[in-house]
Amino acid sequence: MTGTTDATGSQDVRTALTAYRESIDNLDATLVFLLAERFKITQRVGHLKAEFGLPPADPAREQEQVKRLRRLAEEANLDPVFAEKFLAFIIAEVVRHHEVIAQNAAQGDAIAAAKSE
Amino acid sequence: MTGTTDATGSQDVRTALTAYRESIDNLDATLVFLLAERFKITQRVGHLKAEFGLPPADPAREQEQVKRLRRLAEEANLDPVFAEKFLAFIIAEVVRHHEVIAQNAAQGDAIAAAKSE
Repeated sequence: MTGTTDATGSQDVRTALTAYRESIDNLDATLVFLLAERFKITQRVGHLKAEFGLPPADPAREQEQVKRLRRLAEEANLDPVFAEKFLAFIIAEVVRHHEVIAQNAAQGDAIAAAKSE
Repeated sequence: MTGTTDATGSQDVRTALTAYRESIDNLDATLVFLLAERFKITQRVGHLKAEFGLPPADPAREQEQVKRLRRLAEEANLDPVFAEKFLAFIIAEVVRHHEVIAQNAAQGDAIAAAKSE
């Protein structure tokens, strides 16, 4: 009987694990689409910054974001240290995008200037 | 007139930047709450794994997740390399949680064993 109980038990574990993983997969899809939307907006910010010669990084804004996300993380029962690391991870990618945009804009200006000479 | 146009121009830039940042902040709040929910589920997975002696990491499952997220990233016009780095970042945190849960479970077993002697 122990064998039967074990088999049923491990079947239950597999069923539970599969259900959890389905939820994780749904949340991951949502995260990917949200991140894509977030980068679409930061790309627009990057173009705006490049056009008006603003620096790619903004430490004052980042400090505000960290403070706010830590507060939201606490409310959501998420480790605030992890939330801060997460924001740093995203911002590093955003700054990388902004640098590429600024570089391309500068190259575009140089090409335009060369053409106008 | 150039001065006035510049002032209006930079006011427009500030307004546009503020609007973009409000959207970014909304998406960030959503990301934090989604991540909190994701970790709630992986904590349950951690307890299940600890209870049934399953290993904290699962390379086969991770490979499937990477493949799926890269496909979803392409669909969302998000850099698949970034999506993969993002998943690795999240999974590292999950595995850390699972190890803590497994350790605590082992300690609990040891205490229970000591008490029963």
